[in-house]
Amino acid sequence: MPKQVDHHERRQQIAAAVCRLAATRGLEGVSLRHVAAEAGVSMGRIQHYFKTKDEMLLFAFGTISERVEHRVAQAVATLPQPPDARSLVRALLVEMMPVGAHARAEMPMWIAFFARAVVEPRMADPLREGTRALHAFVAEQVGKACSDGESAADPAREAEILLALADGLMMRLMVGGIEADAALAALDHQLDRAFGSPDRG
Amino acid sequence: MPKQVDHHERRQQIAAAVCRLAATRGLEGVSLRHVAAEAGVSMGRIQHYFKTKDEMLLFAFGTISERVEHRVAQAVATLPQPPDARSLVRALLVEMMPVGAHARAEMPMWIAFFARAVVEPRMADPLREGTRALHAFVAEQVGKACSDGESAADPAREAEILLALADGLMMRLMVGGIEADAALAALDHQLDRAFGSPDRG
Repeated sequence: MPKQVDHHERRQQIAAAVCRLAATRGLEGVSLRHVAAEAGVSMGRIQHYFKTKDEMLLFAFGTISERVEHRVAQAVATLPQPPDARSLVRALLVEMMPVGAHARAEMPMWIAFFARAVVEPRMADPLREGTRALHAFVAEQVGKACSDGESAADPAREAEILLALADGLMMRLMVGGIEADAALAALDHQLDRAFGSPDRG
Repeated sequence: MPKQVDHHERRQQIAAAVCRLAATRGLEGVSLRHVAAEAGVSMGRIQHYFKTKDEMLLFAFGTISERVEHRVAQAVATLPQPPDARSLVRALLVEMMPVGAHARAEMPMWIAFFARAVVEPRMADPLREGTRALHAFVAEQVGKACSDGESAADPAREAEILLALADGLMMRLMVGGIEADAALAALDHQLDRAFGSPDRG
């Protein structure tokens, strides 16, 4: 077991180095060599885990996805129990936007990964799978609100709009095109439309 | 004058090469050397126009922005005259999404530029300026619809939501996470909310 733990920690350490480099130097800074230097491990060690830069990016993407899931679960645990559908979706979408310190640190890595996926279709697979899972979850929650009579929305379409809106707001936040308060206000306004206003709940 | 025209054409030719490389190899493929080879000009010629890769990216970004403006103007010219506010905004937002052949070819360059702007604040300036101008235009058009009594929306917030939604849908289209029909349906649904349904107009 100790060896297994060591592997896990080493890979986490490498993923963290990928995130730091993506945030300071972008995709071009995420070479196997730069990551080895940033993580303080040998090139041989990096190559033991990852044969290519794309493998390393895929791993870092998976690591960030797990961390986001973990933070969403933490946010959900602080909600009044059982949480209502709107609050669940809000916790998810807010965590997708770089308003917290963790998300701000990770988001450049996500952008670098996305930019790579645009030109390397194989890298787009986990993005599409993630989107499908998120869409199914959000549509299900909007559907629950519909059946409770709070909203007459088309759940699948509302889910598309909410998720695309969160991505678009994320992009604006990343380049200083919108303030965090305004982004959250826009998101809340759209959540009201999909779920009905909270005071109607 | 002939010399001036030659300069203009040469720079357009270089911008087109930047777009092709960004679409096939991403930001990493857009080096001065690769662009010289792709455009069929000497490194010296490239360096005569652009001292750095970022200068070249800024120029290509400006060129694409001009082309998008031109295509929006063409799309607006085909609308029933005078075009209503909703149709104007729709023509703009549709051109921001990679549903046409031109936009599909240019969008990877835009993504590469955006990824660079995330780690190089100086590059984010034209993105923020473009966003400000778009936001002012869309908010003005939503405001016109409000004063016509078609909608009771908050124009500035509706403009934020529409523009972020268009960016988010663009990202999904780029990695095959949504079909063009579904993206346009989501956009139209949101336009109905901001402007009132067309059959109410």
